[in-house]
Amino acid sequence: MAKTEPRTLAGFMELLPNEQILFNQIKQTIENTYQKFGFLPLDTPVIELSEVLLAKAGGETEKQIYRFQKGENDLSLRFDLTVPLSKYVAKNYGNLSFPFRRYQIGKVYRGERTQKGRFREFYQCDIDMIGDGELDLIYDAELPSVIATIFKSLGFDKFTIRINNRKILNGLFENLGQKEASVEILRAIDKIDKIGKQAVIEELQKLKVMQAAIDTIINFIEIEGTSDEKIAKLKEFGIESEIFIQGVEELEYVVKYMRLFGIAEENFKVDLTIARGLDYYTGTVYETFLDDYRELGSVCSGGRYENLAEYYTDKKLPGVGVSIGLTRLFFKLNELNLVQATKKSIADVLIIPMLEDLSVPIRLANKLRNNGVKTEIYLNRKKLKAKFKYADKLEIPYVIIIGEDEIRANQCKVKNMETGEEKEVPFEEIEELKF
Amino acid sequence: MAKTEPRTLAGFMELLPNEQILFNQIKQTIENTYQKFGFLPLDTPVIELSEVLLAKAGGETEKQIYRFQKGENDLSLRFDLTVPLSKYVAKNYGNLSFPFRRYQIGKVYRGERTQKGRFREFYQCDIDMIGDGELDLIYDAELPSVIATIFKSLGFDKFTIRINNRKILNGLFENLGQKEASVEILRAIDKIDKIGKQAVIEELQKLKVMQAAIDTIINFIEIEGTSDEKIAKLKEFGIESEIFIQGVEELEYVVKYMRLFGIAEENFKVDLTIARGLDYYTGTVYETFLDDYRELGSVCSGGRYENLAEYYTDKKLPGVGVSIGLTRLFFKLNELNLVQATKKSIADVLIIPMLEDLSVPIRLANKLRNNGVKTEIYLNRKKLKAKFKYADKLEIPYVIIIGEDEIRANQCKVKNMETGEEKEVPFEEIEELKF
Repeated sequence: MAKTEPRTLAGFMELLPNEQILFNQIKQTIENTYQKFGFLPLDTPVIELSEVLLAKAGGETEKQIYRFQKGENDLSLRFDLTVPLSKYVAKNYGNLSFPFRRYQIGKVYRGERTQKGRFREFYQCDIDMIGDGELDLIYDAELPSVIATIFKSLGFDKFTIRINNRKILNGLFENLGQKEASVEILRAIDKIDKIGKQAVIEELQKLKVMQAAIDTIINFIEIEGTSDEKIAKLKEFGIESEIFIQGVEELEYVVKYMRLFGIAEENFKVDLTIARGLDYYTGTVYETFLDDYRELGSVCSGGRYENLAEYYTDKKLPGVGVSIGLTRLFFKLNELNLVQATKKSIADVLIIPMLEDLSVPIRLANKLRNNGVKTEIYLNRKKLKAKFKYADKLEIPYVIIIGEDEIRANQCKVKNMETGEEKEVPFEEIEELKF
Repeated sequence: MAKTEPRTLAGFMELLPNEQILFNQIKQTIENTYQKFGFLPLDTPVIELSEVLLAKAGGETEKQIYRFQKGENDLSLRFDLTVPLSKYVAKNYGNLSFPFRRYQIGKVYRGERTQKGRFREFYQCDIDMIGDGELDLIYDAELPSVIATIFKSLGFDKFTIRINNRKILNGLFENLGQKEASVEILRAIDKIDKIGKQAVIEELQKLKVMQAAIDTIINFIEIEGTSDEKIAKLKEFGIESEIFIQGVEELEYVVKYMRLFGIAEENFKVDLTIARGLDYYTGTVYETFLDDYRELGSVCSGGRYENLAEYYTDKKLPGVGVSIGLTRLFFKLNELNLVQATKKSIADVLIIPMLEDLSVPIRLANKLRNNGVKTEIYLNRKKLKAKFKYADKLEIPYVIIIGEDEIRANQCKVKNMETGEEKEVPFEEIEELKF
């Protein structure tokens, strides 16, 4: 028979079992944390009507969409979990309790140019808190505590949640008469880490921003100090804009409550240069960096928006949320060898029968499984060596050997595969073993 | 702004949070059971190259595929988890340990005609054990013990795993000179439960099967008795076919070992009429029915196949596996109200602050969360009644109220929302509470 080459599309992650175990543990840590904060699970379809999914989208996003016709329907694969959330909340408004706290962990699709570490199918892990008409600002301070808990649980103590408020930037630009150009200015400022101050100034000049305004903008983004010092300097920065002042007050309030939510000083920082996208967020914005691996970029980002679902409903639904791009994060962490599985195998123990009559080994497997021990029994008739090699490759921590000698002595041999330690254990004591 | 109607495609399940919690619990029970038997996790892409995915498919299947062009690629959404497994094993053959035991729980896509209880996007929960060249028959007896564990864990004690062996049917037809017509004959026999014996006879007559052969076939499918009695009758049925005899021997062996794997007599049954698909399975086949809800059809099916990945590789890879169509199963169980969430909310406790200064309630939330208690804190400034209503609707089992009085007394009020019982608990004792 002619064979088809078994291959997987570029940009689609497909892991070997040991990597998959690690990936799933990270995913589970994120999910457990979301649940610890009382977020409710959601699972929306991967496919939506294009008309619904693309009610808002445009430009870059639309080009990347997997869009196709099936029967009479114009369909698209979801490219994020926010638009499906908007649709869901608008659709189910009457059946939800607000504030609606939901998490969703699922695959999304973007036909980006493929390159190493970029994926066309990737997991997003999102949380959002949606208010009905209003959502207290204090929720903006609770969210970073979810982020902090996740990265600590993943073994990273050195991370920084960078926080800003879009109103400060918007107020500044308005005050400088640069409201129209604000999108371009933000885009230029956003690059300061990459291209440096002088290049940013040149970009602003190209945008025909007056030199006095450029000076103010540069003074602004160069405000230094601790988070509290920055806030104090902002208060004296002398921008006569209501929106600017409101932004500073909000930032101060959020920072105060972040401390109450237990976020350590070294894990957050006011950063006046971050803006997070250009038209979506309206208040608090966050980015999260692993201090020793800044090159990974932000590993968890998000912010406050005024109105989640305006394309679908007249209801005003303000919210705040963050997202983790898990597939890319995993790829990077794994590449740098920064994460280890807490348990490298699924099975706790492999039973290796070395005799014809399999009754005793099978009954032992039943018993262990009933007691919640993850148990595999090797049933192919192979040499002992092959069976041990299997346990080794799968990194199963314990092996139980049962042969004729063991049956006669009414015991089995238990081997710790890591230490090599072996001991004889009578069958009636096997349940007392900890695997 | 003109609004787009927020709607979800027909045939795509999208649940409210309380239903999603239940759905996830069932999914988790299945996953936990798969892990208890040492199966390894796998997660393959939803999108594959059509050439790869459809290497084998044809006929009915191909029509249902979601297939489209993106850039230069002819792509398809997976319609099951078996073809991706075949591709995966062929592709990663050198990196896997055999027998390769994997589970995969994921969404698959079939553009079927929409009708109630039929889904175009649905979860399949698959397990397979793949051998390299050979896979001992005894694994066919281990699989039903996974099925039994799942349905018991889901609270169903009354279920029947129906088991047969395709070799018996194939040997019979060969012996009757009906090898060519075997696909049509199987299709007719498969319907006996629905259309009755006489209609099956008529269908066989239309297929031009000789009357003597029809009599033999009907005698065969009317073999009655316990599993052991059926096997004994098969042995004396007088069919001189090696393949028939081998099938009977295999069935006898599998039944013997199913008992050893702890499957109770009332939970399995030899059923000579089941065939499971027409060209894929080559040995043992299974179907599972909930005894009190036969109308649901088989809730878990599968079988033994000789060669998993012949479209991709020359390696002989025999295997045995089963699949649960979770979305449809959930829909039916939920509709009949046959499953209840073990825990109806995500949060264990809702903290309700009734004072201006939120320091104490927030610190309590931090403390509970650090101790692993799933805790939500209600931070919108609403009346007490609205906050209680929220806890009620979300079915959160405990509420902690903290007001000025409580702060002064250095305690909080804990209310059991189910019993209505309230008690005052000093802050320093809160960690001793069980939620």
